[in-house]
Amino acid sequence: MKKLLVFGHQNPDTDAITSAIAYAYYLNHNGIEAEAVALGLPSEETAYALKQFKTEAPRVIEAAANETDTVALVDHNEAQQSVSDIKDVEVYAVVDHHRIANFETANPLYYRAEPVGCTNTILYKMFKEKSIAIPADIAGLMLSAIISDTLLFKSPTCTPEDEAAATELAEIAGVSMNEYGLAMLKAGTNLDDKSIAELLTLDAKSFPMGDKNVRIAQVNTVDVQDVLERQVELVSAMEAENAAQGYDVFLLVITNIIDSDSALLAVGSHLDTVASAFGVSLNENVALLPGVVSRKKQVVPPLTEAFSK
Amino acid sequence: MKKLLVFGHQNPDTDAITSAIAYAYYLNHNGIEAEAVALGLPSEETAYALKQFKTEAPRVIEAAANETDTVALVDHNEAQQSVSDIKDVEVYAVVDHHRIANFETANPLYYRAEPVGCTNTILYKMFKEKSIAIPADIAGLMLSAIISDTLLFKSPTCTPEDEAAATELAEIAGVSMNEYGLAMLKAGTNLDDKSIAELLTLDAKSFPMGDKNVRIAQVNTVDVQDVLERQVELVSAMEAENAAQGYDVFLLVITNIIDSDSALLAVGSHLDTVASAFGVSLNENVALLPGVVSRKKQVVPPLTEAFSK
Repeated sequence: MKKLLVFGHQNPDTDAITSAIAYAYYLNHNGIEAEAVALGLPSEETAYALKQFKTEAPRVIEAAANETDTVALVDHNEAQQSVSDIKDVEVYAVVDHHRIANFETANPLYYRAEPVGCTNTILYKMFKEKSIAIPADIAGLMLSAIISDTLLFKSPTCTPEDEAAATELAEIAGVSMNEYGLAMLKAGTNLDDKSIAELLTLDAKSFPMGDKNVRIAQVNTVDVQDVLERQVELVSAMEAENAAQGYDVFLLVITNIIDSDSALLAVGSHLDTVASAFGVSLNENVALLPGVVSRKKQVVPPLTEAFSK
Repeated sequence: MKKLLVFGHQNPDTDAITSAIAYAYYLNHNGIEAEAVALGLPSEETAYALKQFKTEAPRVIEAAANETDTVALVDHNEAQQSVSDIKDVEVYAVVDHHRIANFETANPLYYRAEPVGCTNTILYKMFKEKSIAIPADIAGLMLSAIISDTLLFKSPTCTPEDEAAATELAEIAGVSMNEYGLAMLKAGTNLDDKSIAELLTLDAKSFPMGDKNVRIAQVNTVDVQDVLERQVELVSAMEAENAAQGYDVFLLVITNIIDSDSALLAVGSHLDTVASAFGVSLNENVALLPGVVSRKKQVVPPLTEAFSK
């Protein structure tokens, strides 16, 4: 086995980047040569966390098979969210907290999934199970991911295990969880200097649902209206993406991290199905989704059900 | 969530039956109401183990959705090896040591896979991680599964973790690992009173490979010739099964547990691909596979590769 590459999903968020760093450390500690890489550049939020905990951003790769035969996936498993040539390499291990779909191997592997709020919460348990000490900087990065994925424990994806892990990681990292957490989240909500294209790709994932291909992007903000001021340009860019990439529906979930709800901007050919999935009416492509902050738990499941009927 | 049903694959072997029993115990201990059931009756080997450790065979179910909404899978994940209505229930958890394929969920779940020789080795680690004491009878059943899956540590699927777990489980169960193990394996090799249909279904699984559907049955014996004396009837029954079930190839792997090799009996429309997968020639549908004892590690991978070309 050549050096194993560890990476999270495309359009990496803080969990994707930092869980690769933490899991590569874990593997190296267990005698398996591993390098954390990434399928994209860190977001501003992630960059804030990396700077705070004095860690360089992982090298970005476009493909894996040109440099290794074996990879480990963190924070994702679905092929369309992974490296472009995932089918040409062997998956040694997966650590993830998402549904399993479009994932298939020829051989047995390590797979560790739990329905918790963050991949790093699972990694934290794995470190504990093997009694491996977590260095302070890596603990800080793992904490950052839990705060990011759970929006400081406000997301319905958050479990008591996430809070417990975050509390202990904050202690190891030597930071105040709430103070640091809010500062990090706010660093990630500066959308004013983002282009329309960036808003639609920062944290976007594709989901096959029934026979439809659904693209769902999400941005965090402290001012939803601020984003919706660019609605006309957004809709036209989303229409262009649908045409170019073959998406049936493109959704932008604009999440207010202070109020813990979201505005939904929907563009595509099956908007009646989208509206019925959430029990709302779309008004010029927009609907308010009160209490919705989690794509994984509150957006994907009702859509999957609606599109599977 | 209603009471969770825990079960292994169709045509259950000792690991499928006993890992359901062990995992149901683990879940109940963690406050999750669970019942071990099975997708078929125990084999003679499994019956020997159940009798030795004073445990009743799990109730056999034909379907799950008529009595629960949530299940846990052990020792398998592929839909075609699972309960008939797997798509109508939610998978809460999987504990398995096979490749992942034909498995998809709408929601995040617990998934614990490791490339070890036996599901019960993973369960043993999970008990240890949570410091849950294993009752002596359950330890004996878990030990039986490890012995069965690894053919008393002779299979190439066997890892040091399997041997270590078996050693500790034998101590808890209070039996001599080798003496008990050989007696149990021999109890499972009495094939004389088995009908042709039984030989072909006792431990049979279907595998989609490329665009072909491959059925692979395996029997353990101490006398391969004894089984091959019924070759004519076997071939005609396998041809009939191919026609009735739409299998492209039907393979019977007749494994000598003393010599640790197998005879392969192959029937179907792509026997040249089968022969090339193993680098052998078939002589009247039969080839010797020296050193081959593991369907998972030595039969499925070369066939999958050959049929994917």
